[in-house]
Amino acid sequence: MRKPLRLGMVGGLSNVGETHRAAARMDGLYSLDAAVLSRDRDKNRRACEDLGIAEDRRYSDFAAMAAAEANREDGVEVVAVITPNNTHAPIAAAFLETGVHVLCEKPMTTSYEDALGLVRLAREKNLFLALCHAYAFYPMVHEARRIVAAGELGALRTIQVEYPSGWGASLVETSKSGAAWRMDPAQSGASSVVGDLGTHAHHLACFVSGLQARALLAELSTTVKGRGADDNAQLLLRFDGGVGGALWTTMAAAGCANALRLRVFGERGHLAWSQETPEELFFRGGSGADRVYRRAMEGMSAEAAAYSRSRPGQPQGFAESFANLYRALARAIHGRADGAAPPWFPDGVDGARGVDLVEAARRSHDGGGVWVALRDVEADLAARD
Amino acid sequence: MRKPLRLGMVGGLSNVGETHRAAARMDGLYSLDAAVLSRDRDKNRRACEDLGIAEDRRYSDFAAMAAAEANREDGVEVVAVITPNNTHAPIAAAFLETGVHVLCEKPMTTSYEDALGLVRLAREKNLFLALCHAYAFYPMVHEARRIVAAGELGALRTIQVEYPSGWGASLVETSKSGAAWRMDPAQSGASSVVGDLGTHAHHLACFVSGLQARALLAELSTTVKGRGADDNAQLLLRFDGGVGGALWTTMAAAGCANALRLRVFGERGHLAWSQETPEELFFRGGSGADRVYRRAMEGMSAEAAAYSRSRPGQPQGFAESFANLYRALARAIHGRADGAAPPWFPDGVDGARGVDLVEAARRSHDGGGVWVALRDVEADLAARD
Amino acid sequence: MRKPLRLGMVGGLSNVGETHRAAARMDGLYSLDAAVLSRDRDKNRRACEDLGIAEDRRYSDFAAMAAAEANREDGVEVVAVITPNNTHAPIAAAFLETGVHVLCEKPMTTSYEDALGLVRLAREKNLFLALCHAYAFYPMVHEARRIVAAGELGALRTIQVEYPSGWGASLVETSKSGAAWRMDPAQSGASSVVGDLGTHAHHLACFVSGLQARALLAELSTTVKGRGADDNAQLLLRFDGGVGGALWTTMAAAGCANALRLRVFGERGHLAWSQETPEELFFRGGSGADRVYRRAMEGMSAEAAAYSRSRPGQPQGFAESFANLYRALARAIHGRADGAAPPWFPDGVDGARGVDLVEAARRSHDGGGVWVALRDVEADLAARD
Amino acid sequence: MRKPLRLGMVGGLSNVGETHRAAARMDGLYSLDAAVLSRDRDKNRRACEDLGIAEDRRYSDFAAMAAAEANREDGVEVVAVITPNNTHAPIAAAFLETGVHVLCEKPMTTSYEDALGLVRLAREKNLFLALCHAYAFYPMVHEARRIVAAGELGALRTIQVEYPSGWGASLVETSKSGAAWRMDPAQSGASSVVGDLGTHAHHLACFVSGLQARALLAELSTTVKGRGADDNAQLLLRFDGGVGGALWTTMAAAGCANALRLRVFGERGHLAWSQETPEELFFRGGSGADRVYRRAMEGMSAEAAAYSRSRPGQPQGFAESFANLYRALARAIHGRADGAAPPWFPDGVDGARGVDLVEAARRSHDGGGVWVALRDVEADLAARD
Repeated sequence: MRKPLRLGMVGGLSNVGETHRAAARMDGLYSLDAAVLSRDRDKNRRACEDLGIAEDRRYSDFAAMAAAEANREDGVEVVAVITPNNTHAPIAAAFLETGVHVLCEKPMTTSYEDALGLVRLAREKNLFLALCHAYAFYPMVHEARRIVAAGELGALRTIQVEYPSGWGASLVETSKSGAAWRMDPAQSGASSVVGDLGTHAHHLACFVSGLQARALLAELSTTVKGRGADDNAQLLLRFDGGVGGALWTTMAAAGCANALRLRVFGERGHLAWSQETPEELFFRGGSGADRVYRRAMEGMSAEAAAYSRSRPGQPQGFAESFANLYRALARAIHGRADGAAPPWFPDGVDGARGVDLVEAARRSHDGGGVWVALRDVEADLAARD
Repeated sequence: MRKPLRLGMVGGLSNVGETHRAAARMDGLYSLDAAVLSRDRDKNRRACEDLGIAEDRRYSDFAAMAAAEANREDGVEVVAVITPNNTHAPIAAAFLETGVHVLCEKPMTTSYEDALGLVRLAREKNLFLALCHAYAFYPMVHEARRIVAAGELGALRTIQVEYPSGWGASLVETSKSGAAWRMDPAQSGASSVVGDLGTHAHHLACFVSGLQARALLAELSTTVKGRGADDNAQLLLRFDGGVGGALWTTMAAAGCANALRLRVFGERGHLAWSQETPEELFFRGGSGADRVYRRAMEGMSAEAAAYSRSRPGQPQGFAESFANLYRALARAIHGRADGAAPPWFPDGVDGARGVDLVEAARRSHDGGGVWVALRDVEADLAARD
Repeated sequence: MRKPLRLGMVGGLSNVGETHRAAARMDGLYSLDAAVLSRDRDKNRRACEDLGIAEDRRYSDFAAMAAAEANREDGVEVVAVITPNNTHAPIAAAFLETGVHVLCEKPMTTSYEDALGLVRLAREKNLFLALCHAYAFYPMVHEARRIVAAGELGALRTIQVEYPSGWGASLVETSKSGAAWRMDPAQSGASSVVGDLGTHAHHLACFVSGLQARALLAELSTTVKGRGADDNAQLLLRFDGGVGGALWTTMAAAGCANALRLRVFGERGHLAWSQETPEELFFRGGSGADRVYRRAMEGMSAEAAAYSRSRPGQPQGFAESFANLYRALARAIHGRADGAAPPWFPDGVDGARGVDLVEAARRSHDGGGVWVALRDVEADLAARD
Repeated sequence: MRKPLRLGMVGGLSNVGETHRAAARMDGLYSLDAAVLSRDRDKNRRACEDLGIAEDRRYSDFAAMAAAEANREDGVEVVAVITPNNTHAPIAAAFLETGVHVLCEKPMTTSYEDALGLVRLAREKNLFLALCHAYAFYPMVHEARRIVAAGELGALRTIQVEYPSGWGASLVETSKSGAAWRMDPAQSGASSVVGDLGTHAHHLACFVSGLQARALLAELSTTVKGRGADDNAQLLLRFDGGVGGALWTTMAAAGCANALRLRVFGERGHLAWSQETPEELFFRGGSGADRVYRRAMEGMSAEAAAYSRSRPGQPQGFAESFANLYRALARAIHGRADGAAPPWFPDGVDGARGVDLVEAARRSHDGGGVWVALRDVEADLAARD
């Protein structure tokens, strides 16, 4: 057994943090050795203690942590950034500067220039910068990507993706942990809902279709009275090659949970996948019987098998997807020592595309609902070299 | 038993026509006595013969039929108009002029002014002008409307409706009956797909929500190479009271059939209904268990019961919905003799709204994807008096 | 158009009767010309009047009707028998004796000997004797039969069939129409629940698998206090070739409606079909994606197409299945004149097998739950010649 | 943080073993410190090494392990027994004798007397003896138990449970890991299929209903040619209070995976739960809308909440259920130190009931399919004191 990677955590006293920790534990590939879990001194101390973090590695701020860990032989090798959106950039930068790989929550930053800056820094330091689009690590999402890439749908025609949630269906700003900053544009970015949920939907649509979104038109709205941020977004999209589409997301859909759902339509059929029933992938062609691909069925593709864990009919869920992300990053880091190519994971370029989506949605909406071009991240990076 | 209403038919040599005839037969409320089923003389004769229509009531054109029937004591009392969209206006007008009630396929006309004209004529003649939005006659659609009206969702927030079909997923223009005129803008109207399918989705959304659409923004596209009409439409909608929404429809979704699906979201929960599984209505509130309303369950509302026919668990389908429409019209006609208020059915005003939707979608798209106001039909009618 | 067949009806003032009438009307193949709908004189008169039956053909008992109709030139050609089980035999016999085809509700009789007697009489008179196992006329049931027959499951292993209903979940004996005689063994037969529901499940299992049941073991029980008949039955079954299986049925499953469900397992996969979602047929093989066959999909088999009516995605339900049965019988009758082979429909031999099932279940249970052989109907018929 | 419990493992080089290890890791409550993973010396060494087990704690047989660990201050506190059925008794006894808690795979033993012996030994030593019926740890299974206990179904009427699997649908005896001993009656017990799968179904039915099975009638069969053990079982069951039921299980259902499914019917409605879609619990009452309880919905019961881990709509699966079992056992052990009552988990008495089920099924079948009484475990234990 490899020695577990030394993991640090900034933020994460929330549910999301617990998801990260369970994912890190599941394969025994990480040990959580250092953290600043909360800006509240007492809460931080207690939480670190509960998690068995040594006293001298319970930090009160990220800068101190980055500096101190850099001076230890057993300093953290990877840091998970699980803080409000507007703090991702300085935190991620601090760790990249000191040679630590970064796994960053989405959206990566609250400005496109910051996003480009992080990508450039990671490249310069030869470090991994990974984004938490864990939904892409469901086996059947990889299967969907394979089916599209194999041309089984023929030329694509339209992509319909949506992510309605109900976590903000009432005015939870003060009552629900994490809601206050998510609903504060100063901390969450140009669009609360597009940043929080829309970036996941956008990433999934692009990952599965193999296409990039090139333009959008957005209608942002606030459906809960008294709310200071948008909570509903209707986007029209144009992907590579003239493929059209739409993206709808909201956190105010009472009764919805994490109903991320993707449908990709091509000239020969369509695919549908839902995050809440992730073990199945639905395919309907223009003729013949529908097909339902199940995880772990005999004859499963290598792409799905790579992230399939439990036996057929023993449901695998969200925790395993998150663990798959952590596993991919661990393999990338270990593989580097071995000279192996890293497995795919969402990276800083994906992160920058997500930030661009948020900003473009805001510009489109503020312009009255107009078509706005999305940026070419690689070209912009090249232009800044 | 009432004597069956004397029914005439213009057009209807197609599948759609057979749907009409089965609906008219199912309750024994109509007898099909006169028709011009096809412009092809031989086909018309044979089809009329097969249907047992007397030789002297097999007509070669609608004008002759309207005139001749008007001169018979046993002339038709109702006529079903099942022809290409651009012919609805003159045909419907001819029969209204001679005192015959009209059941007209959608979209009602290919111009908003023609639509207003038909409504005014029907009112002037004191005749019923009904539109074939048969999907509204599923019992669970009525149940959905009841639930919204009862305030169980609270204030509405967003309406998501879609109608993807695959009947035009390849270039069927010459191979499939009815496809040629549907894909010819001269016959189908300003938007083929919005007229053919979008009007159903729009009607359903308005009927269930109890709201009218007041503005739209449209992106129309042609996804099948070589096609001379649009076949995909993404609409953003604004309903009464600032409620937002979206409508997607296409006839080029390979593998889809008649996947009309409506979701209505309010502050306290949401409803979902799908035409392809019409016996169930899904309700999820902000807390507690989901509810699935089933047709014919004990405790069914009067609204759903009115159009429920078979026992619980013996599935009722599309044929019964169409028969429900015919039954509603028959009751309206009979009720008039009895002085009873007519039951609800989609009427000429609904028809005019559908035509307006088609024209507005075209204007929005041609303007580059801009918000366009929808008209106030009653105000426009009043203005023309 | 063929002249409609002259149809008579004995019994049928119930929901079931209305199902028959709508089925007879749907294709315009029958006219309901004579009836004794109820033993209550006034109810009978009113109901016949409502249905437009001429005064002189509203009969007060079946014997009078059989005699009188036999003396008319326009006498009925087919009679539907929709009465309590113990009256089927004399009624069916009376009409067969006078040359009238019979469509009989299930179970065909309340004694196996009576059942054999009807089959022999029908053969002697060269008349059709059809049984109302209408569930077999769903297109996807025919598709299931085709798939099994084509060997796609390989050798069969086990058949699981069930039909839980909740119509008798409380003591409805006096409150619900038709419940009193169904719960009276003197009228319903040796097992109320096996006769009422189990015969449908048995027929479906045999029809789809192409196998006959050869032995059974039964546990009958009464789950509703105060009830004088069984209302729950667990049967173990042995089919041809050593294939095993089980059949569960009850009318006391609170909340169930008509949840007839069949699963057939073979060495290479299994099939599942549910009457309450009849448009789909599920197939899962040992490897690869599941398949969901939909009615009216492109590439539908001829077997399914034969009874498919509406377009893809426009749900077809129970009413059409019943109409398919009426259509099959009409085609058989018309085909005879034309010298054509009759289409398949459940016949007297199927009926006798159902009656045998009921009696065997009773014998097995009363013997303490022992294996009991089922009879060979054709051999028994031959033995009586 | 508590120091992790020191865990030992006997057997577990299989998929099942990996499930155990992931479950033990997920909450950080255990450290795997000693093991004999395989009887193959080399495989054992390599596997122990991969798992980071110290060299001196990689044992070649369980007796040596029990003895050596008993002599260490840091010896294991809990041992997981993941070996062929016929070895459970001696292994579990060896560790109980030396003061180690036991978590044992099902069926607990291959003889009822051995089962009683283990229970007595555990009680004598004041140690926990837990059984791996992990399916009971799905949150919605606890919810189902709560609903039944609260009387929402009224008096129960019938219980239908099934567990078809396809892992042995072909002659996998030599090709699939773990299949050889499972299909060898000398190692698996009196019924391979009832022991392997039927005990899970039986446990689930009893746990949710709150009833014990008191008698059964069984038909065992072998559906795969060349197989030396049964692979299909149909059981009729009688529970406390005259409640009837049926249990079907097989490992030869081609295409099935782990399709454990329970339905409980009462006078006021019924519940249905499926292991392959474990996040939902279906309730249908005699009237009104169906209810679908979802894990983590607002208003979730305390019973379901106790084992709910991820947020609403982020699917939780089998791995978490297994981890819940490990967590319950850890809490029981820790709670003892604190004087707290242990949480519920399946224990030795449950294990003995499962073994009795297996033996009774064999006796019933061999007697020609006769009703056989199930034993009263507590009475039998008392009788042996």
